[in-house]
This record gives sequence, C-alpha cells and structure tokens, in this order.
Amino acid sequence: MAAQAKPRRRRLALVASRGSLDGAYPPLILAATAASLGWEVGIFFTFYGLDILHKKRHKKLKVAPIGNPAMPVAIPNLVGALPGMTAAATTMMRRWMKRANLPTIPQFLDMARESGARLFACSTTMGVMGIREADLVPGADIAGAAAFLDFAAEADVSLFV
Amino acid sequence: MAAQAKPRRRRLALVASRGSLDGAYPPLILAATAASLGWEVGIFFTFYGLDILHKKRHKKLKVAPIGNPAMPVAIPNLVGALPGMTAAATTMMRRWMKRANLPTIPQFLDMARESGARLFACSTTMGVMGIREADLVPGADIAGAAAFLDFAAEADVSLFV
Amino acid sequence: MAAQAKPRRRRLALVASRGSLDGAYPPLILAATAASLGWEVGIFFTFYGLDILHKKRHKKLKVAPIGNPAMPVAIPNLVGALPGMTAAATTMMRRWMKRANLPTIPQFLDMARESGARLFACSTTMGVMGIREADLVPGADIAGAAAFLDFAAEADVSLFV
Repeated sequence: MAAQAKPRRRRLALVASRGSLDGAYPPLILAATAASLGWEVGIFFTFYGLDILHKKRHKKLKVAPIGNPAMPVAIPNLVGALPGMTAAATTMMRRWMKRANLPTIPQFLDMARESGARLFACSTTMGVMGIREADLVPGADIAGAAAFLDFAAEADVSLFV
Repeated sequence: MAAQAKPRRRRLALVASRGSLDGAYPPLILAATAASLGWEVGIFFTFYGLDILHKKRHKKLKVAPIGNPAMPVAIPNLVGALPGMTAAATTMMRRWMKRANLPTIPQFLDMARESGARLFACSTTMGVMGIREADLVPGADIAGAAAFLDFAAEADVSLFV
Repeated sequence: MAAQAKPRRRRLALVASRGSLDGAYPPLILAATAASLGWEVGIFFTFYGLDILHKKRHKKLKVAPIGNPAMPVAIPNLVGALPGMTAAATTMMRRWMKRANLPTIPQFLDMARESGARLFACSTTMGVMGIREADLVPGADIAGAAAFLDFAAEADVSLFV
C-alpha cells in the first residue's frame, strides 16, 4: 500500500475457521499484535471458528491428540484415540501457553473488544454449527460473508486461519 | 485499495487446498458471495483441494469424524475411528448444509462457472494426487502456481483455505 | 496494486503454521515459485510450522494417515490408527513428491535462502513448541508477529497456510 496518498490506519482482516485450542490461538495472537501496533482489526468467525465466540464453549476448546504428526510430544494415533487423550493433550497445551505467558482465549477476546476490534459471527454457518445469538460473547456482530469481504477489501493484510 | 484512480472490479483470489466436505465449503461460499457482489473471482485448487474439481470425487467429499474436537456433535476419537463413522459424520454435515439452504459442492461449482469465476487446477500437484485432465469438471484450467500468483498480485483479497 | 507509481518488486508474505509433510509443501512451493518470478519473499514459521525450520525435525516431517478423508489412497481411520501407518503414509507421499520432481523440504529451504527469502521463526511460539535458536537452520531470524505484520503490510499477496 505504498501508493497511499494520506496516512490512514493499517487494517488486518482475519477469518477464524478452526475451533480447536491450537487453531484459535493464531488469529487471536495476530489480532492482539496488530491492535498493539495501532492497526484496525476485524475477525470473521465461521464454521468451527464460531466456537471461539461461544460464551461457554470457548473456555473449553480442545487439542486433538491424533491426526497431527507435528505435536511436540509424539503420540501414536492408536494411543491418541484412547479415551482421555484429548483431555491430556489439551491440558498439556494449556500449560505451555501459560508458561509462554499467553492470555487465555476469553482474555484474548476481552482484549480484542477493548482494542475496538470488530468480531463478526458468520450468519450462514451459525445454524449449521448449532449456535444462536444468545450463545455469543457480548460485542459480536452477526454478519454474512459479504460484510467480511467489504471489510477485507480495504485491508492491508487478509488471512484465512 | 483506496488509492485506485479509476473504478475497477474488485478481485478475490483463493487457494482451495482441502478436500474434505467441511474444507470445501468455505472457499466456495466466499467465491459465490464475492461473485454476487460483482467481484472477479479466481480459485486455485491444489493438493487435496483438487478433489473439489474432480468430476466423480467432488460428489462424495467426506467429513473426518476424528482429529477435530470442534465437531458440533462430540465424538470420542476411538468411536470416530470405527468403520462407518466417516459416513455418519458426512451424512450429518450434508443434512446441516441442506437445512441451511446451502448448495451442494457440484451446484457451487456450476454457480462459480456461470459467474465467470476462474478455476485453476494446480498442475504441480495433479500428478501427486493422481488426477488427470479428463477427471476434472469442464471449464477448469490447468495452471501452475505462477499463474495463480500473477492473478493474486492484482487481487483486493487473497486467502489460502 | 495497479496504482503503484513506480515499479518495485512484488512481495509475497506467507505464514507457515503446519508441521506435517503435506502442510509444509504448499508454502515452500509458493515461496519458490514467487522467488523464481523475481518476487521478494518472507515466510513466518509459527506453531507446528516451526518444525520446517528445525534442523533435525524437518528431515522427518510426517503425513497423518487419519482425519483426512481426502488422502489419495483411502485408509479407514481404524486402520490409519494402527502403529506403522503414519510411516507408511509418509513414505507414500515422499515417493509421490519424488515422482513429481519436487525438491525435499531441506532442499526447498536451501533454495529459499539462496533466493534471498526471509525466514522468520516466531519468537512467541518457539518456547511453546520446545524449539531453541540452536535447533534452527542457519539464516532464520527469530522475530515476533509484529515483524511479520510489518513485512506483510507492504506485500502484494499474503497467505496463511
């Protein structure tokens, strides 16, 4: 955007489509970082990502112990499929996040709201994912993909996570 | 892109890299929405995403019942690994999509073609994924990553899904 | 970016967040293609994607045989969970990549470095993923998300993989 005639705030447009704990952190870290740099931020939560806006579910996002061979502690898939392993992998990642001084998911959402970030809840997939307006954290706007594309069209950086 | 001197059509450049049913919907929904807003749209189908362009396979895209702790109906991984569970999760998601009045994957592709969207099939990964030109839906262009980057360089929004 | 007053090099900004073999190829292929077109390239390796920069681990990236119903050779999840199946899926994909004449991951990184691409290792998630500076390939810069956003703000195409 070097051709900009007059200075304006930079803008970050994110899509958050994943609902696992390790899928929720990247968009929230990027959003918090951009906001701390003075950028305008908007996040479009869609599909499984809607869980990040879900008042109850977002406190309990989980990590899958299987299907990801890059997990820091290698877990054979057969072991990963045993009852209790999702809970174990989730506890482990929570502990890592805490050690790295990262906020929790609800804390990140509070920070986003306080910084003025726009939180779009995808209207098309709310029904598909079984999420109603009353389930969402305060400050979320129910919006369609068209509203997100309008917002992203003027963004300096757009990322689908 | 506020600095544009004269009006031109906005452009959306997408990479569709996933071949599951829940991975295929987001780029197709974004493409259809952008086209309905009058945007120019191009989708680069690569790796598993090539299945979306595959005449036979794209009618049978599936949902993995394991490795995704954000599935609306929680399924323990050990149960998810049982024979038949992939089919069950897929049937469930198809039903949700229908209830949300979303078109099927082949319908979305027809809409994309009719709206003039460009469908690029990644030449580099066609061989890797065992897909030949005759397998593709009509209207798909076999192209390399360079063609996609050229298209995306002039886009207002580029997203890798 | 048609409004650019004077010609400058195009720029590609990538986030590489996945640490599986099939998750590592797309950003590296895009980076190599952009570099061959004369673009400036930067890749921000974060979360599991840090494994791509890990001197030892990046030679042994794996493919998950479960949780991905789009695998070219369909493997029932229960079979995919058996010991040895991750190794089998990985060997299979390595063979495909070789047949398609694709460089290995270490070769792609060498190419990236030689082309002048910037390799950012995410400082925030290095601790989380248990990766220290001495583990990284030469030429990687440890940097935060702010450095990546600065780089991406001037990019023609930004993609989160």
